[in-house]
Amino acid sequence: MQRTVFFISDSTGITAETIGNSILAQFEGTAFDKHRLPFVDDAKKAEAAALRIKTRYAQTGQRPIVVNTMADRTLCDIVATSGALMLDVFAPFIGPLEVELGAKRSGAVNRSHGLVDFDKYEARINATNYALTHDDGIDVDYAQADLILVGVSRSGKTPTCLYMALHYGVSAANYPLTDDDLDKLELPVRLRPYKDRLFGLTIDPQRLAQIREQRRANSRYATIEQCRWELAQAEKLMRREAIPSLNTTHVSIEEIASKIFERFGIERTMF
Amino acid sequence: MQRTVFFISDSTGITAETIGNSILAQFEGTAFDKHRLPFVDDAKKAEAAALRIKTRYAQTGQRPIVVNTMADRTLCDIVATSGALMLDVFAPFIGPLEVELGAKRSGAVNRSHGLVDFDKYEARINATNYALTHDDGIDVDYAQADLILVGVSRSGKTPTCLYMALHYGVSAANYPLTDDDLDKLELPVRLRPYKDRLFGLTIDPQRLAQIREQRRANSRYATIEQCRWELAQAEKLMRREAIPSLNTTHVSIEEIASKIFERFGIERTMF
Repeated sequence: MQRTVFFISDSTGITAETIGNSILAQFEGTAFDKHRLPFVDDAKKAEAAALRIKTRYAQTGQRPIVVNTMADRTLCDIVATSGALMLDVFAPFIGPLEVELGAKRSGAVNRSHGLVDFDKYEARINATNYALTHDDGIDVDYAQADLILVGVSRSGKTPTCLYMALHYGVSAANYPLTDDDLDKLELPVRLRPYKDRLFGLTIDPQRLAQIREQRRANSRYATIEQCRWELAQAEKLMRREAIPSLNTTHVSIEEIASKIFERFGIERTMF
Repeated sequence: MQRTVFFISDSTGITAETIGNSILAQFEGTAFDKHRLPFVDDAKKAEAAALRIKTRYAQTGQRPIVVNTMADRTLCDIVATSGALMLDVFAPFIGPLEVELGAKRSGAVNRSHGLVDFDKYEARINATNYALTHDDGIDVDYAQADLILVGVSRSGKTPTCLYMALHYGVSAANYPLTDDDLDKLELPVRLRPYKDRLFGLTIDPQRLAQIREQRRANSRYATIEQCRWELAQAEKLMRREAIPSLNTTHVSIEEIASKIFERFGIERTMF
């Protein structure tokens, strides 16, 4: 049985969606049909949202669930006329914080994903540019790198570097191990000065073959034998050089990034 | 007066941090010193966390604030011995949902950023690869693009495309308007079949000059005159071709992405 969920916000809806997904994931037996309603910031939009939720209620015969981060009580009340189960994300925490901080909540809500702090923006853009220009392992200077991911082709290095840059402003380079490195079981000379910033990504051979097959069907590159050989050599090299590593097969990009930060003691918080 | 905040989680801590930042942003008068404590999933780690929080309490003389998404009550109780103000992110919502869904919360918590659904993972990786290979406007095929961002160099196209790909699996290409396009006030021929998928990014000239100066100091490219000319022409072109657009100067990447999705009626939810 599927239940409809609306993430509703006067801003991007990212907070509503993030906490909503975390809560819903705790109810494994139920399937959810999820919708995002961002930028609901006036009565007209709230009425349109309420109508849409009510219509859904009528169509499915099931009460929809609304995960709400709108600040304005008037707008919440309008949406509540839809008859949905309203889960207000902020309400339970504002009271205790007002007491603790001895201050009233100010008008400026949902600013965390809104107005931009130029310095932070620049940090994430610069880190993203760094990741983009240090993505191929060819002719790059690693002196500025916060960390350097190493691994065979398609082990998840690029998306992880981009994620760390976009969200944490961490300048991460990545170096794809070549057949030559894997044959010799040696790190290239120019990586050696930065050995304490290296982190290895590995992956199961079957999964790697599947990803590579999508990329280059029927190639030697995608055969299970080639994948097995590359990964076995890469793991040998990482052990020999004492490079910390993580198998990414069953791990999300977010979790890979968090594990890497934990290993390096990086406590930077998100933008 | 600065208050210390710990985001504590048995997983990545992303949910704790996202909602925590949203709540704290509502108390503008207070400065927060934020720390992330991810992967606190056994008693030993919880005790270490509690000690760290308690030490901070003693050092600052201010009661720390803990934003918590750990599921295990035993671990929460250990952390609570630190004397911090505990804000439990999930607690207020589980009860109402159990009643609504007629089901008990299952053990699997914090899975939203954890174990991976291969299809979703593939969608975000494929979209990221698409964004990377369709980033320069040179010799690319736009047939597969969900949408195409246009704008002058450094108006925010690349990070926005990467963000949409990584988080929503949206395949977004980007086309940097050339001096030739801006002179002629014409879209290049190969963009024309995809006019209904175009979205323009603009930016204030002062801000653009500042960003470009960082990139190429003392270049013609970074002069305010050049930036003014390019932006004026780009805006003319977007008006003439009826391309929807957004000024990104005071807007975060998250908000740019949400606004674009709203414009195109894309309701895809996050991974």
